[in-house]
Amino acid sequence: MLQLSEKATGIPASAIRKLVPFSEAAEAAGTKVYHLNVGAPDIKSPDCAIDALKAHCKKLNHVSYTNSAGLQALREGMIEKYYKKIGIDIELKDIITTEGGSEAFAVAMQVVANPGDEIIVVEPFYTNYQTFAFLYGINLKVVQTNIRDSFSLPPIEEFEKVLTPWTKAVLISNPCNPSGKLYTKAEMLQIGEFCQRHDLFLISDEVYREFCYTSEPHFSAMNIPGCEQNVILADSVSKRYNLCGARIGCMVSRNKYVMSAMMKFAQSRLCPPVLGQVAALGALDTPQSYFDEVRAEYIKRRNFTITALNQMPGVFSPMPYGAFYTVAQLPVDDSEKFAKWLLTTYRLDNETVMITPAASFFKTPGIARSYARIAYVLEVPALEKAMNILANALQEYPGRMK
Amino acid sequence: MLQLSEKATGIPASAIRKLVPFSEAAEAAGTKVYHLNVGAPDIKSPDCAIDALKAHCKKLNHVSYTNSAGLQALREGMIEKYYKKIGIDIELKDIITTEGGSEAFAVAMQVVANPGDEIIVVEPFYTNYQTFAFLYGINLKVVQTNIRDSFSLPPIEEFEKVLTPWTKAVLISNPCNPSGKLYTKAEMLQIGEFCQRHDLFLISDEVYREFCYTSEPHFSAMNIPGCEQNVILADSVSKRYNLCGARIGCMVSRNKYVMSAMMKFAQSRLCPPVLGQVAALGALDTPQSYFDEVRAEYIKRRNFTITALNQMPGVFSPMPYGAFYTVAQLPVDDSEKFAKWLLTTYRLDNETVMITPAASFFKTPGIARSYARIAYVLEVPALEKAMNILANALQEYPGRMK
Repeated sequence: MLQLSEKATGIPASAIRKLVPFSEAAEAAGTKVYHLNVGAPDIKSPDCAIDALKAHCKKLNHVSYTNSAGLQALREGMIEKYYKKIGIDIELKDIITTEGGSEAFAVAMQVVANPGDEIIVVEPFYTNYQTFAFLYGINLKVVQTNIRDSFSLPPIEEFEKVLTPWTKAVLISNPCNPSGKLYTKAEMLQIGEFCQRHDLFLISDEVYREFCYTSEPHFSAMNIPGCEQNVILADSVSKRYNLCGARIGCMVSRNKYVMSAMMKFAQSRLCPPVLGQVAALGALDTPQSYFDEVRAEYIKRRNFTITALNQMPGVFSPMPYGAFYTVAQLPVDDSEKFAKWLLTTYRLDNETVMITPAASFFKTPGIARSYARIAYVLEVPALEKAMNILANALQEYPGRMK
Repeated sequence: MLQLSEKATGIPASAIRKLVPFSEAAEAAGTKVYHLNVGAPDIKSPDCAIDALKAHCKKLNHVSYTNSAGLQALREGMIEKYYKKIGIDIELKDIITTEGGSEAFAVAMQVVANPGDEIIVVEPFYTNYQTFAFLYGINLKVVQTNIRDSFSLPPIEEFEKVLTPWTKAVLISNPCNPSGKLYTKAEMLQIGEFCQRHDLFLISDEVYREFCYTSEPHFSAMNIPGCEQNVILADSVSKRYNLCGARIGCMVSRNKYVMSAMMKFAQSRLCPPVLGQVAALGALDTPQSYFDEVRAEYIKRRNFTITALNQMPGVFSPMPYGAFYTVAQLPVDDSEKFAKWLLTTYRLDNETVMITPAASFFKTPGIARSYARIAYVLEVPALEKAMNILANALQEYPGRMK
């Protein structure tokens, strides 16, 4: 008998993708499905990115490899035109271009932790942290937060409680996918102090950095004083410039041992996709007005969505200050059953909505049974319809909780 | 003290990339370096690939995610326009688009083997098999071949000898990087029979399939009778159409459990690069004349290179029948020292050559000390100069063996 590996049999199916067959069936049957489930915004990519690609194609003869760290012009451009502008001071040796933000944190996890080691995450967390931890034999140790307290960082004693001799790093996403939680400077300094005190790496996934909705600027882990050797930044060009499919991100660290190891990982997959690199290089000239417009648009969408959610009886959503998601508590027995019911059974004027059950963003069993991640990535008129459908569906759902 | 993982400290540096600083220094000092070291051909990408990209850019608004398995049109296109044409009969469920051929065999290795398990490889093998085996805790068990025997497959008893209860798969590249060895149908059937008899997977890396120089058509592992459930194909669009930087490949298997596991791996990295997928989709319309011309060009280059090598006193190269490499035995004490000496010290009219020491393609210590991989990826006039330099350098090299 041919036998697959434990990785192959144990790797979790994506909670987001598991429902896709049901939404495809609904759409095939002519039902309009509002997708509140995916982080795939409908916002246009910057013209300068697409223009760069067009110009490149005109003189293109041969799509050849680049350096494993990516085009030098792209790395220099990211340093000068992006990181310097937002107050992150790095050099060429501190940055390697990656295949999206995913490669950046996946490699970072492997660089800091052996199989059997532990990484501390704050719950809820991006679901693929758990997927990669599983693949690398790393145990995620969870610090819990509270939806009613807007998923705020608990006292640092909660980190101390899960610390063991096997703990190698803290891994955060800021702003957070799925909760939209944005860490304050004070919270970041606390985490940084904890990492320094215990010689832990701090892997900071900041792919949603340009999607912050407070008057304070985003405070990057790269700027925690004294944490220069501890911090590994996972970043994404794809998210920042709405170039999701370009699959370009980067890993950044001032720790030369980390970068040297990461470079060897990078060499093993030869080079990041070149055409995406070309688009990313062009995107560096995106004017501030583009970000301002996108930000204003998301604030509008967020405000509408969170207000609408909290007006539904039994629904609670904290106010997210970053990314384009919220985790909301719904008056349902099981958000996975509810999400499936929405796609297979419920229709309002032959329309329905697709949401993401939140359980896969939590490790602690049971906590998130009634939670769903809602992505506000549609325009307000579409969100209006979607929220109306959701409100009505919640009234009719047989598994509604009193 | 911050400590890196064992993966981070142990991952091998790329033998190819290790010499890059020396070639860069030579070039910076004005020396012309002929690159016989990398598999980055100078052949133009097909017009239809670049035209597809241009057309896509014209109406491009938003570079969004695709399905984790890649664009359906691309997968259908590969099945209908490519695999069907070369006699490989597969369905949509049997194919997933990957980030280059690298992702395909890297995931395949993880799907079939647990840490501590073993995979049989034929020596010499593609160096990154060892890199990924190291990262996944998989032990490569080696079947040796002989350069004087053109790296022919040894009797299948040699496979039996390295078989243990931990053996999960055989991993071959056909045609082989680095040796250019092309497996005959008879050899493939033998390997297939071995895998069936012992319930082993057969991971077949066929990224150089379109670079074969015999009158026989390439015999794919996909067509070994009875091996339908055992075979996992790793393939590359990047190589086939000279689109190396596009980073598009695919994994193919008729084993539904394998494909289901691979899909979960694919989901964890969201999607393959979209712009590369667009180029790959266009490339499917590449006319046969393109392949014929490329093939004729490589045969010319190969014939020139192998003849030139074997005319140098003390040099031996078998005739490669596929890919665009050969492994040659040189009359030197150590090919790594020699390669470095070429870059740092030796000049002929201020020109030199860069070759790849072959040790990293072997696991057995010592065998390959005097071997180098030579890529014949330059045009014949450049190869003429490069071979002349190599011949002269070998005469002058202080570590020349009698």
